[in-house]
Amino acid sequence: MSASIDFYFDFSSPYSYIAAHQIEALAARHGRAVNWNPILLGAIFKSTGSAPLVEFPLKGQYAVRDFERSARFAGVELKMPKAFPISTVNSARAVLWVKKNVPQRTGDFVRAVATAYFAQDRAINDVAVLQDIANALGLDGAAVAAGTQEAEIKDALKLMTETALARGVFGAPFIFVDDEPFWGQDRLAQVDRWLEQGSF
Amino acid sequence: MSASIDFYFDFSSPYSYIAAHQIEALAARHGRAVNWNPILLGAIFKSTGSAPLVEFPLKGQYAVRDFERSARFAGVELKMPKAFPISTVNSARAVLWVKKNVPQRTGDFVRAVATAYFAQDRAINDVAVLQDIANALGLDGAAVAAGTQEAEIKDALKLMTETALARGVFGAPFIFVDDEPFWGQDRLAQVDRWLEQGSF
Repeated sequence: MSASIDFYFDFSSPYSYIAAHQIEALAARHGRAVNWNPILLGAIFKSTGSAPLVEFPLKGQYAVRDFERSARFAGVELKMPKAFPISTVNSARAVLWVKKNVPQRTGDFVRAVATAYFAQDRAINDVAVLQDIANALGLDGAAVAAGTQEAEIKDALKLMTETALARGVFGAPFIFVDDEPFWGQDRLAQVDRWLEQGSF
Repeated sequence: MSASIDFYFDFSSPYSYIAAHQIEALAARHGRAVNWNPILLGAIFKSTGSAPLVEFPLKGQYAVRDFERSARFAGVELKMPKAFPISTVNSARAVLWVKKNVPQRTGDFVRAVATAYFAQDRAINDVAVLQDIANALGLDGAAVAAGTQEAEIKDALKLMTETALARGVFGAPFIFVDDEPFWGQDRLAQVDRWLEQGSF
């Protein structure tokens, strides 16, 4: 099997949510696995001088319409949460804990957390909610919740975000296929062709 | 025939260039014509507090790679011009003159000017170059060149840009299908489905 696809995402990003439902099947069609890399977009925006999409004049209003339409286009259920965007520190750490301890369930956990936020309006940065989501997947919810407070996991999230920035990640989702960078859920068709042909 | 598709573009936008090569055929498949609307993105960015893509940290470097890759993906030749971005006042005015006087050739003229810039690195804001491009299409190049200085054409470009802003246009290309807004060449697949289904 060739190298995994690096998938950088933030749980506050609707396009990351849509892509999270597509990337694993897409990768699998080309014999690839997905390396799930949660990052904190807020920290990245601070470094690059950017801000959440919805804060930009005109673009922000368009964006909400586009989130919903792009989800329908992709066949993914999306209902914009009342609180948006939110801090995603705990949910990102929970992913890193699952990735370290039950790696084969990482994709399932990412999709479940993202769905809890973008389809069920749940408070996914609340550790009790994360525990509940993990339990529903048959994972050890208490261990996941405790994991969000482990020093090693906290450091791993900082490092993940710094590494992303060093690789040129300025938004989410951000995908690397053998070091070729692709920004946005709307680049998945290009990712697909790149995986097919090696390059184009 | 149903209402035309409103296609807002700026000649300094590589994604507008790619879309300009696709939109007329796409619209025609659904029995629609294209209403070619040149605008000045610089004026729009001034109003919304934005800037050309290449000026943003990290995103700017990625963008150049993405311009070229997206063009290859669409099968459109693109070679980034040495001077980029440029003022597009005269080229936008020339389009409005052609649209007013030889409307059935507007699409041909837009594609020829965009190709002169993005495939041949020509100085498309130079009226002599615009005259040459028009002549090569069998248009009256001298009239096109003179048209860029007509008060009525100058006013039409100002009005076009103001109208775009009032409709929520913050970037290019920007497309309206029966008032549904689509931003970006990468939304043409959604435009296609919208035209097919009425909405989705």
